[in-house]
Amino acid sequence: MYTLFFAPGTCSLASHIALEESGLPFTAQRVDFAKNEQRSPAFLQLNPKGRVPALRTPDGILTETLAILAFIAQTAPERQLAPLDPPFAFAQMQAFNTFLAATVHVAHAHGRRGSRWADAPASLADMKAKVPHTMGENFALIEHGMLQGPWVLGERYSVADPYLFTMAGWLESDGVEIARFPKVHDHFRRMHERPAVQRALATEQASATAALMPKTMNTV
Amino acid sequence: MYTLFFAPGTCSLASHIALEESGLPFTAQRVDFAKNEQRSPAFLQLNPKGRVPALRTPDGILTETLAILAFIAQTAPERQLAPLDPPFAFAQMQAFNTFLAATVHVAHAHGRRGSRWADAPASLADMKAKVPHTMGENFALIEHGMLQGPWVLGERYSVADPYLFTMAGWLESDGVEIARFPKVHDHFRRMHERPAVQRALATEQASATAALMPKTMNTV
Ligand SMILES: N[C@@H](CCC(=O)N[C@@H](CS)C(=O)NCC(=O)O)C(=O)O
Ligand SMILES: N[C@@H](CCC(=O)N[C@@H](CS)C(=O)NCC(=O)O)C(=O)O
Repeated sequence: MYTLFFAPGTCSLASHIALEESGLPFTAQRVDFAKNEQRSPAFLQLNPKGRVPALRTPDGILTETLAILAFIAQTAPERQLAPLDPPFAFAQMQAFNTFLAATVHVAHAHGRRGSRWADAPASLADMKAKVPHTMGENFALIEHGMLQGPWVLGERYSVADPYLFTMAGWLESDGVEIARFPKVHDHFRRMHERPAVQRALATEQASATAALMPKTMNTV
Repeated sequence: MYTLFFAPGTCSLASHIALEESGLPFTAQRVDFAKNEQRSPAFLQLNPKGRVPALRTPDGILTETLAILAFIAQTAPERQLAPLDPPFAFAQMQAFNTFLAATVHVAHAHGRRGSRWADAPASLADMKAKVPHTMGENFALIEHGMLQGPWVLGERYSVADPYLFTMAGWLESDGVEIARFPKVHDHFRRMHERPAVQRALATEQASATAALMPKTMNTV
């Protein structure tokens, strides 16, 4: 049995969808950002970095979206959620996911968590103002070359797809029209129709009380 | 035959060392940051993201340190540069490397490439001023828990080690005393003694003309 620690609409959605696709037995446990639960002693014991996602496995806790996604794919190989062989194909998926983790996610975070990297209110405003530009630039790279279509790796669905879906879901609140990127937009719509995605979204929405429920996927 | 595109002292050093450890046949080709060669049409054709490292393989170009490191380990399994099995052990290495790529490297980059995320000179100065704090915080997490010792994953050397070595080499220029972190410091010294590390550093230094040669590993 696995336990996913998540917060609705954040990057943990990618791992949540991948678990739904995998058929692995799991429960999803919400970490309440409104109460700063990610910094509570209990959660920090679990993940000293104070972030979601974290996955409790029979072998211990695993953190970092990219690592969790590949782990799920390797643990449920019959679902073919990643090209596990040859190494080059696997590496291409990992390169895509690293770009999402180290560049796209980071660009987005400057709009909401700028205080990670600077302190003055003017600096945070400056960072926030640049988000539409950086997110637009990053998604242009994805649209023109990285996203092979119809899925990230071409004909074959993989855990890179829920990860891309999660980040594409942030575009609107980042001030970027997803329609500027037709392949990304089409990918987003097709992802949205998948039963696993519907299940993950429904669980995340139900987990939030009506009052706290985010209207769009706009936290980080 | 593999070709690694690198710039001396940057994050590409991790891939460079891993190649030296792997025994795979490769040449290292310098990308001259002083001439902005990473943005030249020829290089952008190779890597549209305009960054190093990039690895030319018989199957095509691979980018992103994390993906290149795991690829090298999987392509030279006899060198045991990663716990390829079971999935949980591999995922723990990937989680460590993701933290380096998405958090540590990003924190460091705010001191030198702040214009990726903001524009006003005051914002860039503000970001730069926070680097000792963020890098210190990140290395505290590494020191107290993540770095198992003597190697990142414990008794077993892996490609996480050259990656950590590369980032630890940035601490001094980031205004952080490595001696604050005894385990990291000890790891850094033991890495430095490895023949593969010596070879990679020698190649990188020889590739730079004397005039342009960086004195410390301080570019990003
Ligand atoms: N590199 C991590 C990033 C995790 C992360 O930044 N999670 C955000 C949600 S998207 C978070 O927990 N933020 C809470 C906070 O910063 O307090 C990953 O890819 O999983
Ligand atoms: N996520 C990439 C980051 C690559 C990166 O930022 N490389 C830097 C050197 S450490 C670079 O090429 N900078 C040149 C530039 O920004 O123009 C990785 O982990 O490989």
